[in-house]
Amino acid sequence: MTPPPYPVIRLRPNVEPRAIRHGAPWVFDNEIVTDRRTKALSAGTIALLEDADRAPLGLVAVNMASKIMARMMERDVSVAIDRAWLVARLTRAYEMRARMHDAPYYRLVHAEADGLPGVVIDRFDDIAVIQPNAAWAEAMLDDLVAAVQEVTGVGTVLKNAGGRARGLEGLDDQSAVLAGVAPEGPVPVPMNGAIYMADLLGGQKTGLFYDQRPNHAFAARLAKGARVLDMFSHVGGFSLAALAAGAEYALAVDGSDPALGLATQGAARMGLAERFETRRGDAFDVMEALAAEGAQFDVVICDPPAFAPSKQAMEKGLRAYERVARLAAPLVAPGGYLALCSCSHAADLSKFRAACTRGIGRAGRVGPLIHTGFAGPDHPLHANLAESGYLKALFYRL
Amino acid sequence: MTPPPYPVIRLRPNVEPRAIRHGAPWVFDNEIVTDRRTKALSAGTIALLEDADRAPLGLVAVNMASKIMARMMERDVSVAIDRAWLVARLTRAYEMRARMHDAPYYRLVHAEADGLPGVVIDRFDDIAVIQPNAAWAEAMLDDLVAAVQEVTGVGTVLKNAGGRARGLEGLDDQSAVLAGVAPEGPVPVPMNGAIYMADLLGGQKTGLFYDQRPNHAFAARLAKGARVLDMFSHVGGFSLAALAAGAEYALAVDGSDPALGLATQGAARMGLAERFETRRGDAFDVMEALAAEGAQFDVVICDPPAFAPSKQAMEKGLRAYERVARLAAPLVAPGGYLALCSCSHAADLSKFRAACTRGIGRAGRVGPLIHTGFAGPDHPLHANLAESGYLKALFYRL
Repeated sequence: MTPPPYPVIRLRPNVEPRAIRHGAPWVFDNEIVTDRRTKALSAGTIALLEDADRAPLGLVAVNMASKIMARMMERDVSVAIDRAWLVARLTRAYEMRARMHDAPYYRLVHAEADGLPGVVIDRFDDIAVIQPNAAWAEAMLDDLVAAVQEVTGVGTVLKNAGGRARGLEGLDDQSAVLAGVAPEGPVPVPMNGAIYMADLLGGQKTGLFYDQRPNHAFAARLAKGARVLDMFSHVGGFSLAALAAGAEYALAVDGSDPALGLATQGAARMGLAERFETRRGDAFDVMEALAAEGAQFDVVICDPPAFAPSKQAMEKGLRAYERVARLAAPLVAPGGYLALCSCSHAADLSKFRAACTRGIGRAGRVGPLIHTGFAGPDHPLHANLAESGYLKALFYRL
Repeated sequence: MTPPPYPVIRLRPNVEPRAIRHGAPWVFDNEIVTDRRTKALSAGTIALLEDADRAPLGLVAVNMASKIMARMMERDVSVAIDRAWLVARLTRAYEMRARMHDAPYYRLVHAEADGLPGVVIDRFDDIAVIQPNAAWAEAMLDDLVAAVQEVTGVGTVLKNAGGRARGLEGLDDQSAVLAGVAPEGPVPVPMNGAIYMADLLGGQKTGLFYDQRPNHAFAARLAKGARVLDMFSHVGGFSLAALAAGAEYALAVDGSDPALGLATQGAARMGLAERFETRRGDAFDVMEALAAEGAQFDVVICDPPAFAPSKQAMEKGLRAYERVARLAAPLVAPGGYLALCSCSHAADLSKFRAACTRGIGRAGRVGPLIHTGFAGPDHPLHANLAESGYLKALFYRL
């Protein structure tokens, strides 16, 4: 098979190609020769990347308007980037998920780490939700939809255009139904023995956070017979898993009424509504109020939004994580467990852990770290971007 | 209850007591006022630690001959460090293990993190193996044995004096039977569905590595129907768990004939001996030989000894880890999995991961990191020593 004659882009002479040869997935705007010809390439064009000596490095997807000017698609420059190529990449991603999960509910594609730069696909049984957050994926969207259907057999494919990265790529924010029929209302998602209600059209992200699955499972192991507080609960990720594992009682706290409503629906589906309560409010206020009431729980989990989404916000973010720890620790009964999570890229494990340990100490509590968890294997990390693993969950015993 | 009048030791005037108040577990020899009186304190003496202004900081175990001159035992200075105190600490440790494990096989005490500095206790059903690696524990050994029996009900207590830390504390290396009857021959240990044979008197460490349990479990999830290579296998930790999970075949490689003999016994007990093979030899040589034979496996695990046990040995150790990755990667079939482990304190997660990714790249392979695992929750980390988490397991897909 002869691939299409892809346009050529080239590294600047001062750019050492070794990092790219060894797996680096991105080439930045200051590393590529730009001229009238390259500037005219439309966003999402597939191009042949060469080093300054014209040796081929791979096929890349370009976006001349983006700081990430080229994303590595394929190191074998003899192949075509077409529907069959997408099917092969999706098949490889699918095989790992099918091996690791006993039900068709998982992140099917996690962008660069699955060889599909900028593309996120979550699967909910017969429904796939695609986030095409890079221009190439938007340009090949019909092929992508067909390939997802071919590999997984799903009937419905939804497009979620809410990702912030789309703006950087010059893409719109119009979500859509790409294939099949959109579900009416939230869909039930079984995970760790619980049932979550996911609003795939109106919810945050793609309606459910699969990434916390192993941390939900770890918390559930601690929760048998326990009283559980699930702060920043969203649709009840930790609290419903805890109830499924035999928790005596769970209180979910969130700022969003719709999210708490979905959590309550999930508890009802599980037949455990009488052990489940919700409280809407600002998490910091609610934790202070609970402390004032003298409330204590055997297991407390705090899974806040990204307080440190960027390097600039890091110091402020770390102070917020410390404050969460300081307010949560007094709510843990002696001998109980405190789980503190961060989904901030910028706060690395070491800094986040130090902030949490400091906050616990400032609350006058002390205790060992019994577990550190990350996102599950359906959220792999590109080996050259592994520092970017955003999700961390620390489990302390106080 | 009035505690015994413990001797007093005091911080030097230039030492800021805040770190100790906030949970630091150790006081070093250059932080404590030493004079004829304190120098005469016998190793393992319990003392009252004060700051330079004579404010009490806690009860510590001293060893005037050790660089770690005082280990924090108890922040409440009104209590006595006696058998009842040991029972309380052990009960707390036991509660967590009983909650997390469905069978009585686990690390019961993991030193500082469980509030018993320098003491490691592994439980094998009716047998406890104590490593009293600090002088205070040696001095209170009779109480410790009685307390372990009271809390867990075990009949047999063995002392393993093989720990390297004992030399630093000025302790001998004489192992012994402290209570009950020593087992005749290796004991079967059920874990992750496999059966391991642990030689509690003659083996490495305490005969079995409980710390890898969650990583064994993760590898086993990948192993159904797979051909598995378990390098540095010891008694078959990864390979027997993989067989229990449905691996088609497993090859265990180790330098120790006794370890491989125990692994074979375990496979036989599981009724899976026909799917299990061993090869004794230098791991690097065997990996090169397997590559020369063109052997490939669906899952390859390398769990070498600590190549970077100290900061001095770190660079050399990281090169050894890179070499392991480089030799192991070609043995992984396309789409297969490679698990690389480190039990080196000095090689932190970030450096170890970089070495592994580099080694894989030098083998001409590439692939995402699907999981990072640590020791299980029966190996908690003291929150102020969390950087010291020694065990790391990286799972790549190639």
